[in-house]
Amino acid sequence: MLDYEAPLTDFDFLLREVYDFEGTVASLPGCGDATPDVVHAILKEADRFTREILRPINLRGDAAHCTWSKEGVRTPNGYREAYEAFRDGGWPSLAGHPAYGGQGLPLSLALFVREIIASGSMAFGMYTGLSQGAYRALLAHGTEALKKTYLPRLIDGSWTGTMCLTEAESGSDLSRLRTRATPAGDGAYHITGSKIFISGGDHDLAENIVHLVLAKLPDAPAGTRGISLFIVPKLLPDASGSVASGESNAVVCTSIEHKMGIHGSATASLSFEGSKGWLVGEPHGGLRAMFTMMNASRLGVAVQSAGVAELSYQNAIAYARERRQGRAPGGLGAPGAPQTQDLIFAHPDVRRTLLKMKALVEGTRAMYIRSALQMDVRSRHPDAARQARADDSLALMTPVLKSFVSDAAVEVCRLGMSVFGGHGYIHETGMEQLLRDASIVPLYEGTNGIQALDLVQRKLTQDEGRPIAAFLAEVAETIADAGRHGGSLGEIATALDTALTDLRGATTWMQKCAADDPAAAAAGASCYLRLLGLVACGHCWLQMAVAASRARPDGQPGDFRSGKLKTARFYMAHLLPETRQLLASILADTALTIGVTTEEM
Amino acid sequence: MLDYEAPLTDFDFLLREVYDFEGTVASLPGCGDATPDVVHAILKEADRFTREILRPINLRGDAAHCTWSKEGVRTPNGYREAYEAFRDGGWPSLAGHPAYGGQGLPLSLALFVREIIASGSMAFGMYTGLSQGAYRALLAHGTEALKKTYLPRLIDGSWTGTMCLTEAESGSDLSRLRTRATPAGDGAYHITGSKIFISGGDHDLAENIVHLVLAKLPDAPAGTRGISLFIVPKLLPDASGSVASGESNAVVCTSIEHKMGIHGSATASLSFEGSKGWLVGEPHGGLRAMFTMMNASRLGVAVQSAGVAELSYQNAIAYARERRQGRAPGGLGAPGAPQTQDLIFAHPDVRRTLLKMKALVEGTRAMYIRSALQMDVRSRHPDAARQARADDSLALMTPVLKSFVSDAAVEVCRLGMSVFGGHGYIHETGMEQLLRDASIVPLYEGTNGIQALDLVQRKLTQDEGRPIAAFLAEVAETIADAGRHGGSLGEIATALDTALTDLRGATTWMQKCAADDPAAAAAGASCYLRLLGLVACGHCWLQMAVAASRARPDGQPGDFRSGKLKTARFYMAHLLPETRQLLASILADTALTIGVTTEEM
Repeated sequence: MLDYEAPLTDFDFLLREVYDFEGTVASLPGCGDATPDVVHAILKEADRFTREILRPINLRGDAAHCTWSKEGVRTPNGYREAYEAFRDGGWPSLAGHPAYGGQGLPLSLALFVREIIASGSMAFGMYTGLSQGAYRALLAHGTEALKKTYLPRLIDGSWTGTMCLTEAESGSDLSRLRTRATPAGDGAYHITGSKIFISGGDHDLAENIVHLVLAKLPDAPAGTRGISLFIVPKLLPDASGSVASGESNAVVCTSIEHKMGIHGSATASLSFEGSKGWLVGEPHGGLRAMFTMMNASRLGVAVQSAGVAELSYQNAIAYARERRQGRAPGGLGAPGAPQTQDLIFAHPDVRRTLLKMKALVEGTRAMYIRSALQMDVRSRHPDAARQARADDSLALMTPVLKSFVSDAAVEVCRLGMSVFGGHGYIHETGMEQLLRDASIVPLYEGTNGIQALDLVQRKLTQDEGRPIAAFLAEVAETIADAGRHGGSLGEIATALDTALTDLRGATTWMQKCAADDPAAAAAGASCYLRLLGLVACGHCWLQMAVAASRARPDGQPGDFRSGKLKTARFYMAHLLPETRQLLASILADTALTIGVTTEEM
Repeated sequence: MLDYEAPLTDFDFLLREVYDFEGTVASLPGCGDATPDVVHAILKEADRFTREILRPINLRGDAAHCTWSKEGVRTPNGYREAYEAFRDGGWPSLAGHPAYGGQGLPLSLALFVREIIASGSMAFGMYTGLSQGAYRALLAHGTEALKKTYLPRLIDGSWTGTMCLTEAESGSDLSRLRTRATPAGDGAYHITGSKIFISGGDHDLAENIVHLVLAKLPDAPAGTRGISLFIVPKLLPDASGSVASGESNAVVCTSIEHKMGIHGSATASLSFEGSKGWLVGEPHGGLRAMFTMMNASRLGVAVQSAGVAELSYQNAIAYARERRQGRAPGGLGAPGAPQTQDLIFAHPDVRRTLLKMKALVEGTRAMYIRSALQMDVRSRHPDAARQARADDSLALMTPVLKSFVSDAAVEVCRLGMSVFGGHGYIHETGMEQLLRDASIVPLYEGTNGIQALDLVQRKLTQDEGRPIAAFLAEVAETIADAGRHGGSLGEIATALDTALTDLRGATTWMQKCAADDPAAAAAGASCYLRLLGLVACGHCWLQMAVAASRARPDGQPGDFRSGKLKTARFYMAHLLPETRQLLASILADTALTIGVTTEEM
């Protein structure tokens, strides 16, 4: 079983010293309870929950898988008890609206908790994470009657939620959906169609499942403008909102997928057979409502990516501190008899691997936290201009976070496995499960390729490029401030400035292409996204380095801060310079990519 | 089930037009039968065997796993029949010595066949591939009596072989082996100890298993100089060499591993309980004998890596030619009604992904073929100087092939999965199996980190750097020749020349460090290996581009050649420039890597 301890020191550092959680979030209306001390206490409790309840079921659940029968899906042994404990602990209600029984805490806090949950069991976290998406969509777009019935149950966790988007022929392109909704005459609709890849689409954890389903009305225009969103419960609530009588709503789970990983998460095929549904949002306005879910989910993917990567990193470090093999060169190992083997941590190649993992794990955590705080600003700040700026930043960063952070997680899990050598390939060690689990994150909630297109085709040009311009200006300002310190901070700032220049060049070129040569923009999109991600991660590392250079607060170990500074320098020297290659790729003759034919492949 | 067709056009192109198989290998003593036409016919037969016999068992075997009981290991259904067909087809004997019943064909030809087998089922190919290693070690170092008993059975496939190196506390560092050999008085030894991670260590495919076991004699000096190699059969042959009576030799398979992939390959823990063994090679000379096996095995890892990557590439291409989703930008898709979805091949981001896969798959195939031919030159060339040059080249390239090609295979399989989107994560699609299977290649036969140390600590400085100097000179000569053509060949050559300059700089620095600052050399070793691999792969692409620019032979499709040229240009523009970042990493302040402490992580 893998070891885990929630990175509370890092959370504290990021929230108190780097991103001013108190000034940014705790000062927002209704967030006064969320002082840094309260946040710390909640995360500490999440750590306890994860270590005691989730860790023991993670490897077991991977071996057991979910099982399907006509009666429904059974989750692995231990999942029911864990979900009960999750609900009893009040975790689903953290950021829920107080009007519906929620605790009204910041959205960002719920995301920090989600990272810790994902470290405990990514598969388990799928059930609870997707409920959040359903909750958000209903809260934003549902009628008051729907909210009254559904939100309290989603908030107290007695029901869970799903997002039913994908169909066999409609994945990245949702415009060809075949699921239909026909008016039932009583204000409701009959939903008919088949959906695939529905995470948590059926299970035995909660008394009801609330599906948010994309479907087309009879008069739907062609394309994505013709999509509507419906709420379709598995069991129909009675007038009091109870499902105790258990009237079924003709939502049939026809199978679950055999997957590479997240075996404890049921990925269901659902058949809606005239199921009763209610419209959420405007007719044909489903895409907008869906994006409320999707954007939250995409940030959620970054959060769970950081969680699984953290687990890999912690265990790679622990192994390197315990496993002995060979003698390290250059006196790096323990002095003493040549018969003594050194810890593998003493071997420079292992240390380099671990530093790369640390740079990616902590860098991407900082990235998602920075954006998570903006979610609270967007939804609660009294100043509309501040809300708009937060919205800009989130819109720009959502595809970057989803892709860059998920790719980083896969890389970290691969590196973590390599630290264990052949032992990393063995199931019982637990490291190979992390790589299998993490391998879904670049693929779902919109593949990383789709994210890159979203970035260059929409986000870069939106509002005449205001969001990206604001980001570039913010990075430049951080560099200028840090550069004044000279010394190693100055060196870090200079390295980031070089990469920022690459990003500026790539941005100008991409914005021009988006208008003149969309094929060229699409050909370079993934490289551009990665370039932006490297700079954004580098920006976070510079911000961390600046904070780590200040006087340290009581109680924090000094090694923590010097580790931050050294890792920031490592990131600038070893990872960030990839921006140069990416810029060259973006500027390379596009004909090299799009000029090749299928016959030439 | 994944589709597959052996890349015979590519093999023909490489053997006839790029690497002159006829002049290099077929002209060697005893190789006269191996004309390019004969090679083509044998590879075509291997293709048939793979498609008819191996493809059907690959996905099934992944789901079934091997199973262990006290009676021994059972391979998945279908494996026995496949192995019988493999033996009946005479495949194990291809490159076997005629004196022991082999066909005496070139070693390189057996490796090409091995790629095709690995494409059919990497797990199945493990059983047959490791027998080759055991065969080679015995042939090179065994007594005539041992050869007479064992070689004919390994060659006809009635027995298989293993390599028993690793123990629980001795993986990368073999100097701490605990397995002991004590003289039995009759010239044989009693072997006692436990080995782990033994591929094919037990199974039900053949009537006997021949273990080659590293152990220490009672008077063994400390360290790796005290290791000896023994042959330890599972069943003891009688005087006639038969095991029909089946006398057991106290080799107990105590368990098999649950692994991420290659589920059809039994990875055994073996307990030698006073088992009878015979010395192979000199007492305490086991390391040298072992390296005969290991080096062949490491090249074998490159070969199987190319095989699994080829399968991923072929299926990604096929999917991109069949799956429709969305509209491609810039008129790249099919003209017609906006209701028509385009093939995903029409999307630039997908095409870029496929080109990257092609560049890596075909580039790494060329790399291993170039070295495979040198194996034949080394063992058969009448001129000792030519043998020595071939040996130099192989010694240098073995760690590069093992690591660079295995890393490329993992990357290709990851990309292949991404082309399938969420469908890539589903077991039945077959793509996720490839990533799981391929994930072992960077870890076994010496982790890729160990390969990098072998390269910089031994290979770079061996014979005063003669092998690397010869390689640099060869690349420079190819560049100079190609540069004279001008046009796109000239551009490709210029790009490679830039990378070669990076490699020269890194080499000089590394050679200096290896002498003065071994910790710095170790810290940069993996980056250096990758830099060398990128240049070696680029060299192969330039050689392919030159060949593809010549008049095409009858029957070869013109698209094949233009595809080669375009992919060569793609490689130079998009992949090769990573050398610059690697050089910067190598030259960066080593203190950034080795200066960090465990407390700072």
